[in-house]
Amino acid sequence: MSSPSRTLIVQKYGGTSVDGPARIRAVAEHVVRTRQEGHDVVVVVSAMGKTTDELIQLAEELSAFPPAREMDMLVTAGERISMSLLCIAIAELGLTATSFTGSQAGILTDTAHGKAKILEIRADRLRDALADGQIAVVAGFQGMSTDRNITTLGRGGSDTTAVALAAALGAESCEIYTDVAGVFSADPRIVPNARLQPQLSFDEVLEMAATGGRVLALRSVEFARNYGVTLHVRSAFTWEPGTWVGQEEAMEKAIISAITHDTSEAKVTMLGVPDRPGIAARLFRALADEAVNVDMIEQNVSVHGLADISFTVPKADLLVAARVSEEVGTEMGASSVSCDADIARVSLVGAGMKTHPGIAATMFEVLAANGVNIEMISTSSIRISCVMREDRMVDAVRALHTAFELDQEPVP
Amino acid sequence: MSSPSRTLIVQKYGGTSVDGPARIRAVAEHVVRTRQEGHDVVVVVSAMGKTTDELIQLAEELSAFPPAREMDMLVTAGERISMSLLCIAIAELGLTATSFTGSQAGILTDTAHGKAKILEIRADRLRDALADGQIAVVAGFQGMSTDRNITTLGRGGSDTTAVALAAALGAESCEIYTDVAGVFSADPRIVPNARLQPQLSFDEVLEMAATGGRVLALRSVEFARNYGVTLHVRSAFTWEPGTWVGQEEAMEKAIISAITHDTSEAKVTMLGVPDRPGIAARLFRALADEAVNVDMIEQNVSVHGLADISFTVPKADLLVAARVSEEVGTEMGASSVSCDADIARVSLVGAGMKTHPGIAATMFEVLAANGVNIEMISTSSIRISCVMREDRMVDAVRALHTAFELDQEPVP
Repeated sequence: MSSPSRTLIVQKYGGTSVDGPARIRAVAEHVVRTRQEGHDVVVVVSAMGKTTDELIQLAEELSAFPPAREMDMLVTAGERISMSLLCIAIAELGLTATSFTGSQAGILTDTAHGKAKILEIRADRLRDALADGQIAVVAGFQGMSTDRNITTLGRGGSDTTAVALAAALGAESCEIYTDVAGVFSADPRIVPNARLQPQLSFDEVLEMAATGGRVLALRSVEFARNYGVTLHVRSAFTWEPGTWVGQEEAMEKAIISAITHDTSEAKVTMLGVPDRPGIAARLFRALADEAVNVDMIEQNVSVHGLADISFTVPKADLLVAARVSEEVGTEMGASSVSCDADIARVSLVGAGMKTHPGIAATMFEVLAANGVNIEMISTSSIRISCVMREDRMVDAVRALHTAFELDQEPVP
Repeated sequence: MSSPSRTLIVQKYGGTSVDGPARIRAVAEHVVRTRQEGHDVVVVVSAMGKTTDELIQLAEELSAFPPAREMDMLVTAGERISMSLLCIAIAELGLTATSFTGSQAGILTDTAHGKAKILEIRADRLRDALADGQIAVVAGFQGMSTDRNITTLGRGGSDTTAVALAAALGAESCEIYTDVAGVFSADPRIVPNARLQPQLSFDEVLEMAATGGRVLALRSVEFARNYGVTLHVRSAFTWEPGTWVGQEEAMEKAIISAITHDTSEAKVTMLGVPDRPGIAARLFRALADEAVNVDMIEQNVSVHGLADISFTVPKADLLVAARVSEEVGTEMGASSVSCDADIARVSLVGAGMKTHPGIAATMFEVLAANGVNIEMISTSSIRISCVMREDRMVDAVRALHTAFELDQEPVP
């Protein structure tokens, strides 16, 4: 039976962590170990390995535009399979685990199939299971809508499920198990001596996720920040401690936490627009009307009273953005519009930036010393991003990583 | 919109009928055709091909004794996949189909995981979907228990789902689509010129299912008989009419409908038991206490006051049955107990038997003329079964099939 003093840990396991019986057995052992250390445990699982992709492929063989309700019904089968297999593996170790679909776990969502938002969590059945001494295993990524249909939460949905349950049940922490050791100071594939960051703030991880970091989905981190759920991102292969993500106050502040990079955007430049009030408003309203997601924006006015406007968009939106810009440019009397998909964005993220002036200057000096031409700049209070040629990106990331002393310290 | 004059047809598709996108597309086309002929349609689907077996195998890799609740959660994913894919394929043809899990279809069961019984069907959501002009696609084989867990109905469960829905919704008929053309006068693998029977009574099909016929599950036929649901067993590959199964009154009575065979049983014989009252009672109570399923029983008393008792049991129960018989035999003073797994049972089934005397005599004559020694006999009002050596079975089935004029008539 659960004792009142027992603390609750929510653990989320991604697709690679439960891919096949051997992996599921390893996860079951870790869950049981956590339980035996004196915690109540709620487990959230993704579908095994490539299951979701395979189901989507089956649907695509039948229809180019499958109904969203049926796609949700289809893909939610994946978590149902992994969660019951995990319960079976836990039972084999002598403990009782009970699986819950999103609906059974009381995850109530809106009706937006494929990208539903959680409205409320009615976790009575989970609480009863925990009070009965059971381990609760919940299907990630899914819920039941207000009109009693099965919905999915979209990309990173299992992380969101885990964080939302941790918030609803007052968990001590939410552990996100994945196939990497945690959050690194840069992508280890580019910077082999990138270091594992033991502590990061929500804001830092949000900036990292927004500028190319791939470990945590933006939405689940926002959810965690809003509800004050401490996250622990760690490996389901080594079981070693990873990266804790929490409120900034509780953190030891590094000046710079990470260098991120991103090649998912393209740049559009409108040259020689007569500089009148309302140009930018006209252009970006027209882009918004076409649902183009504009990220960075820069505008320069030359001495001749002509303005140059540059902005970045996801590469997928480039064709639409170019067309809209041509139309608006013609109307405004711009001299030309050019598109450029060969760009990269490199960003410096760090909460300590707020209290350390001169970080931007150092960044620009390092890039200049390495022959990297900066094409655009944007900043937030804890981030500086520079757009450059894509083929200079790797050098830029490595140079900055070294210059800001992020290279892994030798193990003592 | 559904008009009041529209009749409802329930269609059930087995695993081979929905195995892969091409098969699912063919089923979708047939469903749409039925709808366009002016019927409301409720479709019940099994899991695709070998999906259920593959899921069970995954579970068996994790545990020899997986918890029944989790096994039900696991295997019900299979129908969820096939039903949403079918809805997607129907949508591609321009009609609206909505999928329903057992729970969403209102199939309320008891709590016996793996072999749940349907208690009630609360089909409001299905009725609403039909009234809205939609095709309803329901996951076969599954329901929700009174304690809100997901249950499965056991072997042949999808047929049971279809028949139960047909009863609850007042369907005109329940079509069972399978990979054979219908119910034949004998197994076509043994009797190549076996004929497709266009009409059979519930009682005949029940006797056939109980004596080796494999097309329909016993339980779903009992359900259909109890609720007066007319069945139509037909091919999902040719879409040709198959076998109608209904009340006997409505049927043209053939004398003999089918020759069935079965090698799933073994025979136990206790020889030389002193013939006292209570011997049979003692033996069969002991067998029942060990949950041994006894089928045929025969007892002879010799002139010396010694009795021989023979009975048949499923081969899986033979070891237990032998042990129990040895114990009781020793206690009773029997001279010996012998077991025999090399037997076969051949049965003659036909509703016309009731009004045609001499059928049994003919059967015994045919077997004798073919050199088949009869070891045991059992009868019901519409069935005669003979136990024989297993290696005589094929000859016996063929000889009887010819003698009772069941060989297919030449197409005129």
